[in-house]
Amino acid sequence: MAKISIIGAGSWGTALGLLLCNNGHDVTICSENEKEIESLKEHREHLTKLPGVKLPDEMKFTCDVRGSLSGQDILVMAKASPYVRTTCKKYAADIPDGQLIVNVAKGVEADTLMTMSQIIEEEVPGANVVVLSGPSHAEEVGRGLPTTIVVGAHDRESALYVQNVFMSPVFRVYTSPDITGIELGGALKNVIALAAGTADGLGYGDNTKAALITRGIAEIARLGTAMGAHAETFYGLSGIGDLIVTCASVHSRNRKAGYLIGQGRTMQQAMDEVQMIVEGVYSAKAGLTLSKKFGIETPIIQAVNQVLFENKNPKQAVDELMQRMKKDELAPDLWER
Amino acid sequence: MAKISIIGAGSWGTALGLLLCNNGHDVTICSENEKEIESLKEHREHLTKLPGVKLPDEMKFTCDVRGSLSGQDILVMAKASPYVRTTCKKYAADIPDGQLIVNVAKGVEADTLMTMSQIIEEEVPGANVVVLSGPSHAEEVGRGLPTTIVVGAHDRESALYVQNVFMSPVFRVYTSPDITGIELGGALKNVIALAAGTADGLGYGDNTKAALITRGIAEIARLGTAMGAHAETFYGLSGIGDLIVTCASVHSRNRKAGYLIGQGRTMQQAMDEVQMIVEGVYSAKAGLTLSKKFGIETPIIQAVNQVLFENKNPKQAVDELMQRMKKDELAPDLWER
Repeated sequence: MAKISIIGAGSWGTALGLLLCNNGHDVTICSENEKEIESLKEHREHLTKLPGVKLPDEMKFTCDVRGSLSGQDILVMAKASPYVRTTCKKYAADIPDGQLIVNVAKGVEADTLMTMSQIIEEEVPGANVVVLSGPSHAEEVGRGLPTTIVVGAHDRESALYVQNVFMSPVFRVYTSPDITGIELGGALKNVIALAAGTADGLGYGDNTKAALITRGIAEIARLGTAMGAHAETFYGLSGIGDLIVTCASVHSRNRKAGYLIGQGRTMQQAMDEVQMIVEGVYSAKAGLTLSKKFGIETPIIQAVNQVLFENKNPKQAVDELMQRMKKDELAPDLWER
Repeated sequence: MAKISIIGAGSWGTALGLLLCNNGHDVTICSENEKEIESLKEHREHLTKLPGVKLPDEMKFTCDVRGSLSGQDILVMAKASPYVRTTCKKYAADIPDGQLIVNVAKGVEADTLMTMSQIIEEEVPGANVVVLSGPSHAEEVGRGLPTTIVVGAHDRESALYVQNVFMSPVFRVYTSPDITGIELGGALKNVIALAAGTADGLGYGDNTKAALITRGIAEIARLGTAMGAHAETFYGLSGIGDLIVTCASVHSRNRKAGYLIGQGRTMQQAMDEVQMIVEGVYSAKAGLTLSKKFGIETPIIQAVNQVLFENKNPKQAVDELMQRMKKDELAPDLWER
C-alpha cells in the first residue's frame, strides 16, 4: 500500500484517486477550493466533473494542501496546466527532498517553452518527477472501462514503481524513458485536435479528420525528434493514442473549440462558449515557437495559429493544407535505397 | 488527359471514376454485372452503393470488360479482394505488356500470403503495378470532401505520374516507394477494426478503442518491418490513417462485424447480418500465419483469430489483452542509452 496525495480535484484527479483507492492505496485528494472539497465529502461524488461515479468511503478529501504534501510515497500533480507553476512555487518548501511526483498535467508553457515536468523540476528542484499520459477520458476511467497509459521516468526503477501502483485489471500501464516525447505529444495533440474539430465544424468528413490526425502526428514527431524525443513515442499511447481519443470525443474542449471556430466563431467566442481552459490555444503558440526554434516545418500547427491569432478563414486554411506541394510521404531518399 | 478503365463498379471504383472524370480524364467503368451497368447508365448514379452522388455524362459504363483493357493509360483494379486473382487470370491475355495498373483492392490472400499487387503481378507478369491506399471513405470522396491518400510504386516515375492523374484540390496524393508497407497496413488494419468494433459491442469506451488502435498498429508495424516494409508507412495515411477512418465509421463492415461479435453473435451470424465481404476475417488468418512465419508477437491479431475461429469469449479476449505482462512501450534497451 502506498500513501498518495493528489493535488487537484478535477475530473482526472478524482478518477485517478478512485483507481488508486480501488488498488488498495491510501488516497487523499486535496484542493484549495473549499466548496468543491465540502461537496466531495458530503456526496462522495464529484457532482459537476465526474457525475455518477461513486467514491469509496476510504478516500480522503482536504483543503489543507500544505499538510498533505509530506509523508507521502507519491504526490500526483493534477492541476490544469496554467496553474502548475504557481502551485509548485507556493508549496515547494513543503515538499520533501527526493519526493516522487507523478505529473498528469499536459501542456507547454508559451513563454518558456517548458513542459509541465520541467516546470515542476525547476520549482521543486529536489523532486523526482515522472509523467503519466495516454488515451484516458476521466469519465471512462471512473467507470472502470479498460484503459492503457504510459509512465515516463528518468530511471527505470521509478517507472516500475509507479507502474505497480497504478496498474489494475482495467488500467494497463506501459513504461518508457522518453519523458520529453510523452509530454510534447500530450501537449501538441491538443493543437491537432483543434484542427480536427475545425474540419468537423466546416462539415468535412472522416477522411479529412484522419488526414489531419495522421499528418498532424507526423509533424509533431518531426519536431519532437529534433528536440531529442523518440519518434515511436508519438506513434504510441501518449501520442497518436491520446490524439485519437481527443478527436473522437464530443467532450474534448479542444475539439469543441475547433468545431465552433469551424462554424464561424472567433477564438474568443469559442473559448467563452466552451467555458473551460482550451489547452490547445496555449500549446499552439508554443508549438509554433518550437517549430521555428528547431527549424521544423509544421504546416498544421502553423495553420491553427493563423486561424486562432490572425483571423484566417478556417476553410481557406484547411483548403490550403490540402493543396500544398505534391509530396513524398516518407523521406524522399528512400526511392534511391 | 489520360484514358482510364476502372475494373469494378463498386462504391470505391465509382467514386474514383468520378474524381478522375472531374480531373478531366477519359474514364470508363467496366463490370460484368449487366444489371449494375444498365442502372448506372440509366440513372447516372450508383443507387445502392453511392446513392446521392450524380455521375457526369462524360463517364462511360460498359459490360465489355475485355474490350476496355487495351489502349488505356491506366487500368484501376477496384474489385473486392477475393475476386482479384480470378479477374486477373481471366483477362491477363487481354492486358497489354507494360500496362500501368493502379490497384485499390486491399487484402492478403490467406493460403499464399500474397498481397493484391503481388497477385496481379503473378497473374499479369508484364504489368507495372502501383497501389493507392489511405483514409478514404468512398461516400466522402464522392461528395468531394477533402481526402488524402498515398500512391506506392516500384519506381518514382510511375508514382509521380499517378499522383498527377489523381490529385485534385480536394484529393491530395502523397508518393511512396513502400508498396509492401502500404498493402500490409491496408489489409491488416481490418483485423484491428474487427477488434475495435468488438470492444464497442462489449460496451467499452474510447479509451479501450484507442488502446486497441494504437497497440494494433504497433504490432502491424513490428510484423511489417520484419517483412521489409518501413515502419513510418504504418504510421502514415495507409496505416494508422486508414485504421482511424475505419474504426470511426459506422459504415465499416469490419467494425460492424466486430460490434455484432462483441454483442454476442458468432462470426457466421455477424457475417450473415453484415451481408457483405468482411475482409478482416480473411486477413486475420493471413496475419496470424505471417506472424508465425516471421516470429513476431501479435497479441491482438491472435486474440481476433481466437474469437473468430475458436469461439473464444470476446470479453475474456479483451480482458486478457489488458492484463498481459507489464511492458515497456518502446524497446527496453532505450533505458540503457
